[in-house]
Amino acid sequence: MSPETVLPILRSVTELRRIVADWRRDGLKVALVPTMGALHAGHMALVARGLELADRVIASVFVNPIQFGPNEDFSSYPRREAQDAALLTSNGAGALYAPSADVMYPEGFSTTISVGGVSEGLCGVTRPGHFSGVATVVTKLLLQALPDVALFGEKDYQQLQVIRRMASDLDIPVRIEGVPIVRETDGLALSSRNAYLSATERATAPLLYKTLQDVGARLIAGEDAVSATAWGKSEVLAGGFGSVDYLDLRDASSLKPLDSLDRPGRLLVAARLGRTRLIDNLGLLPR
Amino acid sequence: MSPETVLPILRSVTELRRIVADWRRDGLKVALVPTMGALHAGHMALVARGLELADRVIASVFVNPIQFGPNEDFSSYPRREAQDAALLTSNGAGALYAPSADVMYPEGFSTTISVGGVSEGLCGVTRPGHFSGVATVVTKLLLQALPDVALFGEKDYQQLQVIRRMASDLDIPVRIEGVPIVRETDGLALSSRNAYLSATERATAPLLYKTLQDVGARLIAGEDAVSATAWGKSEVLAGGFGSVDYLDLRDASSLKPLDSLDRPGRLLVAARLGRTRLIDNLGLLPR
Repeated sequence: MSPETVLPILRSVTELRRIVADWRRDGLKVALVPTMGALHAGHMALVARGLELADRVIASVFVNPIQFGPNEDFSSYPRREAQDAALLTSNGAGALYAPSADVMYPEGFSTTISVGGVSEGLCGVTRPGHFSGVATVVTKLLLQALPDVALFGEKDYQQLQVIRRMASDLDIPVRIEGVPIVRETDGLALSSRNAYLSATERATAPLLYKTLQDVGARLIAGEDAVSATAWGKSEVLAGGFGSVDYLDLRDASSLKPLDSLDRPGRLLVAARLGRTRLIDNLGLLPR
Repeated sequence: MSPETVLPILRSVTELRRIVADWRRDGLKVALVPTMGALHAGHMALVARGLELADRVIASVFVNPIQFGPNEDFSSYPRREAQDAALLTSNGAGALYAPSADVMYPEGFSTTISVGGVSEGLCGVTRPGHFSGVATVVTKLLLQALPDVALFGEKDYQQLQVIRRMASDLDIPVRIEGVPIVRETDGLALSSRNAYLSATERATAPLLYKTLQDVGARLIAGEDAVSATAWGKSEVLAGGFGSVDYLDLRDASSLKPLDSLDRPGRLLVAARLGRTRLIDNLGLLPR
């Protein structure tokens, strides 16, 4: 798509299905990139990977009310559709699907999808109901678009594993593709919520990723998980974070706790910096 | 399909999707009739209606473990695949999909779909978890086959409303079609569970439908629901049923309780005859 092309913005399931059907009729493969908007280079990596795996990429932008808790940032979550559309256009997306809450959850809506196992622990503890909200909206988006492939960032690693499990369990006919985290040059994982950080907090934030790397090195060297992650938590707190929700070594696929790095693992962290909750994670392979 | 044709029996999602894709490539519409087997004329009415709405009908037979409670009849539920296949063949079905429990629920399966509102009350009280089990397996069957239309009997009226709600809420791209109850000449609704009845119980069983008709006549005449259904319960108990789980007048669509027949209603009953639980229902329009 050339830069001067106007990006189609779709508001209804009918419009979405029509454009997908048109592309399919032309023999084209379709990728879906579900987002909550406030797009950044991390999302654009999903679009770029989508264009490698398919001929057309639809990005969806929907700030999903049912995945936010009562004291979370639903109302303040950044919304800037015009900027998002411009970024998507210049990165080669073929359409933006931006439904209203009424389209997604009309009067009488009453279905919930819950995923056991991978949803429990980690963010499932501090954000009860969050992953049911994610699983429900992602199922809807996948069944509305029926893309060939859908792309999700590894930044939300637990979410990615929940979606993999859910799509497999429900036999949703789509390939789920995880895309590596995109980072600032100082290591901070890109996130729409980084916009909440003050200048001082922003200077502190890269400590999260540095600590993941240091804890990872300890685990690879053979230190047990309890000891290595306790050290990591104290580092993060000493560096200026207010609290650590978790810093855990998990099995990379099932997300079950690991005592040590005896198989492919994932080190996951959630910590609070001022009023902002940041998450990050790092894949680790045993030596 | 001529009577001498051998009905394809599909065991895997891959085989199922292949036959559906083959038919689609030929421009044919596909209907799915999900069943738990032990097929009778009620199921054949679903097949017949499927053949009116589509070019090919697939019946699925799967006794779904997750919709049975711990003290229910999962292990004794009748299973007779050869008879089912013969009946399907002679009634024009194009394939039988009969997956194993391992195909439907492989190791690690951990996703549940729950539907609020219409699942609550009625059978939702005496069979906790039942409708989640139904919603989960029906979603899987629909997404495995992706038919144009799926057919369900009005015999399980609450189940039908749960499935309509779930398919709409999740944007499953399929038409859900309800098919009227098929009855014996004495009025007993056909059910695989009628096979559990002794000769004496079988003679008593038609009282359930007769009572629905009588209660319906009272409601149409203007009697309030509490009084009319109380009379109906006493009739059923006096006639030899051991207990009545419920006999309720509900809104025909939302299944919310009605005080009187001031809009399209559904009269629903579940009662126990010996060790067998029978259900039935009747649509009622205000005078």
